[in-house]
Amino acid sequence: MSCIVAFGGSAAAVLDVGSSGNQLFREILRDEAANRLHELGKISDADGYLERTFMSPASVRASNAILSWMQDAGLRTWVDQMGNVHGRTDSMNANAEALLLGSHLDTVIDAGKYDGPLGIICAVSALKALKISGRLEKLTRPVEVIAFSDEEGVRFQTTFLGSGAIAGILPVSALQLSDRSGVTVHDVLKENSLEVTEESFVQLKYDSQSVWGYIEVHMEQGPVLESLGIPLGVVEGIAGQTRLRVTVRGSQGHAGTVPMSMRQDPMAAAAELIVLLENLCKHPENFITYDGQCKGSSDESLSGSVVCTVGEISSWPSASNILTAQVTFTVDVRAMVDITREAIISELSNLMYQTCRRRSVYCNIEHKHDAASVHCDPELSSQLKFAAGSAVKKMPGLIQGDVPVLMSGAGHDALAMSHLTKVGMLFVRCRGGISHSPEENVLDDDIWAAGLALVALLETFL
Amino acid sequence: MSCIVAFGGSAAAVLDVGSSGNQLFREILRDEAANRLHELGKISDADGYLERTFMSPASVRASNAILSWMQDAGLRTWVDQMGNVHGRTDSMNANAEALLLGSHLDTVIDAGKYDGPLGIICAVSALKALKISGRLEKLTRPVEVIAFSDEEGVRFQTTFLGSGAIAGILPVSALQLSDRSGVTVHDVLKENSLEVTEESFVQLKYDSQSVWGYIEVHMEQGPVLESLGIPLGVVEGIAGQTRLRVTVRGSQGHAGTVPMSMRQDPMAAAAELIVLLENLCKHPENFITYDGQCKGSSDESLSGSVVCTVGEISSWPSASNILTAQVTFTVDVRAMVDITREAIISELSNLMYQTCRRRSVYCNIEHKHDAASVHCDPELSSQLKFAAGSAVKKMPGLIQGDVPVLMSGAGHDALAMSHLTKVGMLFVRCRGGISHSPEENVLDDDIWAAGLALVALLETFL
Repeated sequence: MSCIVAFGGSAAAVLDVGSSGNQLFREILRDEAANRLHELGKISDADGYLERTFMSPASVRASNAILSWMQDAGLRTWVDQMGNVHGRTDSMNANAEALLLGSHLDTVIDAGKYDGPLGIICAVSALKALKISGRLEKLTRPVEVIAFSDEEGVRFQTTFLGSGAIAGILPVSALQLSDRSGVTVHDVLKENSLEVTEESFVQLKYDSQSVWGYIEVHMEQGPVLESLGIPLGVVEGIAGQTRLRVTVRGSQGHAGTVPMSMRQDPMAAAAELIVLLENLCKHPENFITYDGQCKGSSDESLSGSVVCTVGEISSWPSASNILTAQVTFTVDVRAMVDITREAIISELSNLMYQTCRRRSVYCNIEHKHDAASVHCDPELSSQLKFAAGSAVKKMPGLIQGDVPVLMSGAGHDALAMSHLTKVGMLFVRCRGGISHSPEENVLDDDIWAAGLALVALLETFL
Repeated sequence: MSCIVAFGGSAAAVLDVGSSGNQLFREILRDEAANRLHELGKISDADGYLERTFMSPASVRASNAILSWMQDAGLRTWVDQMGNVHGRTDSMNANAEALLLGSHLDTVIDAGKYDGPLGIICAVSALKALKISGRLEKLTRPVEVIAFSDEEGVRFQTTFLGSGAIAGILPVSALQLSDRSGVTVHDVLKENSLEVTEESFVQLKYDSQSVWGYIEVHMEQGPVLESLGIPLGVVEGIAGQTRLRVTVRGSQGHAGTVPMSMRQDPMAAAAELIVLLENLCKHPENFITYDGQCKGSSDESLSGSVVCTVGEISSWPSASNILTAQVTFTVDVRAMVDITREAIISELSNLMYQTCRRRSVYCNIEHKHDAASVHCDPELSSQLKFAAGSAVKKMPGLIQGDVPVLMSGAGHDALAMSHLTKVGMLFVRCRGGISHSPEENVLDDDIWAAGLALVALLETFL
C-alpha cells in the first residue's frame, strides 16, 4: 500500500544544521518535500492522470504515505472517522490550545500535484525540521497537522467533508450523500473500517477552547505572486462570492430584414452589459463611494479588490442569419469586502435594468449563490507576514519587495476552519497562475521558502 | 390531386365591375386570393405544419392547384423540366418581349403560407381581373406568371433550383445534388415524369431578348411597412452580404484568482467587439465618409442602409467559475451599396484588431461568405411605385404617406432573375415582421392592395 520514497533526508538535514548553522534545512524543506509531493502526485485512481477523491483507493494509499511521513517527523498519528489524517505533537504543554496546520489530500480530476498536498507536506516538513534540530519537544503549545480528506468535493458534489466535520459545520445528513454509483459517504467510510455513527460524527468537531488557530499553506492558483517576483504572500481573507444568471430577451427576426433602428437585440444588449460589468469591477471607485462609516472599506481599497467574470454565454436560436430571441450569461462576482460586493451587485442590477429599458429588451437577473467573505485573523496574518519575510530573505538570489497581502478568490479548508477558530493563510507562487491542471507547477525553491516560513512561525512558540 | 376551392369569384367580380365601375375587384384580388393562399397553406407533406420542398408530393399537388387557377385566369399553362409552373397570355403581340411575374411555391419547414405563394397568387389574380374586365387580350406584350419550384433550398441545401434554371445561372451539375435520403434532383424529376437531360436542361434558360423584365410581389418579412402604416413598399434592391466568423482567444484562468488588471479575457473583448459592431452599423456615417466619387453613395445614404447581426456566440470552456479561453461569434453584414458593406467590413476589421491588441487577446476574422447586392431597375421601380401608390389610394380607410422604398435584406427569386433581365419587387406588409413561421400573417386588405398594384402596372401595357 505504501508509496514512500526511501530518502536520506534526516541525516542530510542534520549535516545542514551542523555544517552551516543557518537553519535552512534545504534537504528537508526543499528536496524531500518536493520529492514527497512528486510521490503523492503519482498516487492516483486513474491511469495517465491524477485523480484522488474522498476515500478512494488512491486516497487511502496517499493517507498511508502521509501517516508515515508524519511519524517520520516525530508526530503521533491517527485517521479520524471522516478519513482526515492527523499528526500531532503535544509538546511540553499538552493542555494548551493547539495550533492546527493543514490542507487537503483529495484532488480534482486531471489534477496537478500541488493543490492541497503542498500545505500538508510543508507543515510536516517544518515539524520534521524542528525535530531534527531537537526543538520539537520545546514547543509551548501542541501543534497538529491535519490532511483533510475532502475539499474539492468531486465525488459527492459537496465541499469540506473533512474540515467541515472538524469545524462542526457539516450536517450529519452529509453521511447519506451518494456518489454517481449510489455509494453513500457512510458506505465508503464503512468499507474502509471507519464505522461512523451519528454520535461519533458529532464528536469529530473540535472544541474551540482547545484550539489556538489554524494556518494553511496553499499554492496561489493565480498569477499575482509570479508577476511581483515574490515566492510567498499572506492572505487577508477568502473573498465572498455572488453568482448570477442573467437572461436578456428581445425580438427574434430575420438578420436581413429588421433595420438597426427597429431592433430589440438581446445579443447587443448582453454585450453592452458584459462591457459594463467589466468596467464596474475594474474601476468600482468610479461607481461606488463609501460614506466613511463602513469599517474596512474605502474608495482606495475598492480598486483591485473585486473580480467579475462572465464564463458562460448562450443564445437561442443560435444561427448566424437570425436576430436572436434570447441570450443568457453567468456572472461571478468576488470581493474581499462584503459590502463592496453587495454594492457592486446592486449597482450592476441598476445599470443592467436601465440598459435593458433603454434598449426595450427584457432583463432578468437571477441570484444563484451568495457567500460572505472570511477574513483571516489580523494578528496571525501579521505573524505569518513576518515569518514569510524572514524566509524570503534567506532564499538564494536577490528577492526584492515586501511579502504582499492578497485576497483569495478561491475557497479553501481555512474557510471551513474559520467557523472553529482564527485562521491564517500563506500563498505560494505558482507558474502562470495555473491550477486544476497537470500543468500546475511550484518551484522547489518556493516549497522551501514556504517550509522556512512555517519553521519561523513555529519558532515563535518555542 | 386537386385541392381547389370551388369559389364563385368570377361572377362576383363581374358584378363588382358592373356595379361600381371603380375596378376594385375585391372578390378576386382580396377574397379569392386570400382563400387560395389559405388552400395552398393546407397542402403540406407534414401533419400539423406546413412543409413543401422541391418536387415533394405536396409540391406537386400545389402545382396542380396553381395550374388550374392559372387556367381560370385565361392563361396557357405548362410545367417545365425543373418543375416550374408557367401560365402565359401571349396577348395581341406574341413576339414582343414578355413581362414575367412570379415567386416560389416551395416553403421552409413549419412555414407560413405567404412567403412565396403570395407573389404567385397576386399575379394570377391580377391577370384574372384583366380577363374578367375583358382586357387580357389587349395587353401589348406577353405576360407570364411563373411559380418557381425551389427558392428556399430546404431539400437539396441549395437555393434557386427553379429560377436559377430559367435565368441560366444554375449549373447542370445541380441535377446530381442529393437530398438526405440520397435521392438526386434528377431522380426526383424523373419520378414525376420530368425527364431532364443535359441538353434539355440548358434549353430551360430563357433568351434574354425575349424578356422585357421580371416583377415579384413578396411579403416584406420585416417590420418596416407595419411601422410606417403602409401596405406596400417598393424594393430598391437585394442587399449584398458578408458573413464572418470571429474568434477571440485569451488566457484561461480561475474566476476568483486573476485580478481584473491581469486578465486577457476574450469574453469581455468579444462583448466590446459586438457593441462596436452595432455602433458601426447603426451610425456608419460616424466612421465612413465618401469622397464624392462613389456613384450611388453618400454619407446620407449610409444611415439605415446597413444591418449587422451577431446571431451565434459560444465560449470554451463554458463554466461560470472559469475565466474563458476562447469566444467565437458570427457576424452577418448586409448593405444595399456594396462599397458601403466593404467599407464597413474593412473598418470593422481595423477596429477589431485594434481592440484585440489593446486587450492583449488574439483575434481572428474569417470570411465565410461574400455576395454582391442586386439593384432593381430604377424605371421599373418607378412604375411599380406609381402603381402601388394608386392602389394604396383606392384602399378603404385613410392611408397616409408615400409608398416607401426599401432594401431587401433577404434573397428572392428576383436575385436569380436579375441575371436574365431587369427586375422589380413589391413588398407587402406583414404582421410583426414575422416570417418562416406559422405566425406569418398578411392582411386580406394588403393582399388586395398588392393585386390592385399589379393590375395598375399591367394597365400600362394596355
